[in-house]
Amino acid sequence: MGFGLGSLSFIGLGLYNEKGISIYGLERAKEADEVLLEGYTNMLPGLKIASLEKLLGKKVRVVDRKYLEDGKEILSSASKKDIALLVAGDPFVATTHVDLRMRAVKQGIPVEVVNAPSIISVAPGAVGLQNYKFGRSCTITFPMPYSDVPYDTLKLNRAAGLHTLFFLDLRTEEKHFMSVGEGIRLLMVMEHRRGEGIINKDLLLIGVARAGGPEQFVKAGRAQDLLSVDFGDPPHAIIVPGRLHFMEAEALVLFAGADKELVERNL
Amino acid sequence: MGFGLGSLSFIGLGLYNEKGISIYGLERAKEADEVLLEGYTNMLPGLKIASLEKLLGKKVRVVDRKYLEDGKEILSSASKKDIALLVAGDPFVATTHVDLRMRAVKQGIPVEVVNAPSIISVAPGAVGLQNYKFGRSCTITFPMPYSDVPYDTLKLNRAAGLHTLFFLDLRTEEKHFMSVGEGIRLLMVMEHRRGEGIINKDLLLIGVARAGGPEQFVKAGRAQDLLSVDFGDPPHAIIVPGRLHFMEAEALVLFAGADKELVERNL
Repeated sequence: MGFGLGSLSFIGLGLYNEKGISIYGLERAKEADEVLLEGYTNMLPGLKIASLEKLLGKKVRVVDRKYLEDGKEILSSASKKDIALLVAGDPFVATTHVDLRMRAVKQGIPVEVVNAPSIISVAPGAVGLQNYKFGRSCTITFPMPYSDVPYDTLKLNRAAGLHTLFFLDLRTEEKHFMSVGEGIRLLMVMEHRRGEGIINKDLLLIGVARAGGPEQFVKAGRAQDLLSVDFGDPPHAIIVPGRLHFMEAEALVLFAGADKELVERNL
Repeated sequence: MGFGLGSLSFIGLGLYNEKGISIYGLERAKEADEVLLEGYTNMLPGLKIASLEKLLGKKVRVVDRKYLEDGKEILSSASKKDIALLVAGDPFVATTHVDLRMRAVKQGIPVEVVNAPSIISVAPGAVGLQNYKFGRSCTITFPMPYSDVPYDTLKLNRAAGLHTLFFLDLRTEEKHFMSVGEGIRLLMVMEHRRGEGIINKDLLLIGVARAGGPEQFVKAGRAQDLLSVDFGDPPHAIIVPGRLHFMEAEALVLFAGADKELVERNL
């Protein structure tokens, strides 16, 4: 970024593999003195480090959560050299890098952000639901500790007729990614505890797997029926539609194999 | 897509210029028999057709809204040839192409979607606001006819402590893109009519211009103060924060030049 003073670029890789990077992002990564890849939120089902290195024409160093949370080394490097940090999805959709960016700005390190596709826009688009009809999104977390937040989020959104996008938790150390089925079961546990009638076995849900890549699989159906569907490799997400526009209902039938009668009950 | 049967690919260009396309999107566009570019929602401030054609190594045909809404010609072509349709942002965030995609699927034409950055994830990330704290988003439309929807959206989101992303209307025929200032004035008109105290001159707002490109400009401040800020060329957007996490408050100061006292009133 001029002046020989170093910089920190956050460059998104999108959702599938190294080819999700934009042309501009590729240029910036090639120009960087060092390229780091965050490993810990890495949910890119098609990413191979060797292919990424071939595309960039240089070595990539994989760094973990601890390294980025500590941040001292990367910020020290970025004060002298141009550092490119490659991240899954669109930078800053996950909150994990905001702290690093704030520290860079405070230290006077030039920061650049190169955007990429995010699950936020990709999942609704994949199934034909209108973006402006989504309410707050939320993560369904593994139940230690147990959290009611997904239940309350769904309750608020459904009262307003809005759709809800649920991210599903992951434990990278144990390579445990929550599946659509696990997410639905956890929603059912919440209903059992709260008993307010928000979730039942006939609730229309959409399971989304590997969104934004060639192995994307989406399936809309009753909560009970989706429990036995094999969505395959992670990452997965769940959408609970609110009130459907007739065009959204038709899209769910065409793009997500929904039962016509089931979606028509949600018009 | 094999079989010589044709296909229709929706390929996102992201938010700034031709370099927002992904590596995979570029490959697919190069392989296509014909490349079309939608002109009517074209809000890419840095896009030049000549540069796009140079990148692709082939001619690009600009098509308008009427052409895509009619859809007969493009679907007929896509039944015989591989057609790539380049669109601004991430495909299907705007609802304009969903109908075309549904018709393609019904006619048995293979459809591919290649994702790209969307304002949905880029604008919150640019200013350091957490994605999962956004409620429903909404467009502030030109006041013919007058619509209260933005007011009600803001009311609902703020009651839940959530942030609101407002898209701003555009009239491409007249090349009229709503500015941050016009958007704020329209919100104030709504308050004048409704009088429920949702919007006042001290309300914390964030104006976002040309999000996701090198000429991005963001500025947080009181509604009254932002009225006199020149945000420059379109496209613009407005974010109205709800309750701020302390880290979001700090981010607004560092990334969007917010007044420290002002953001602290929104904690």
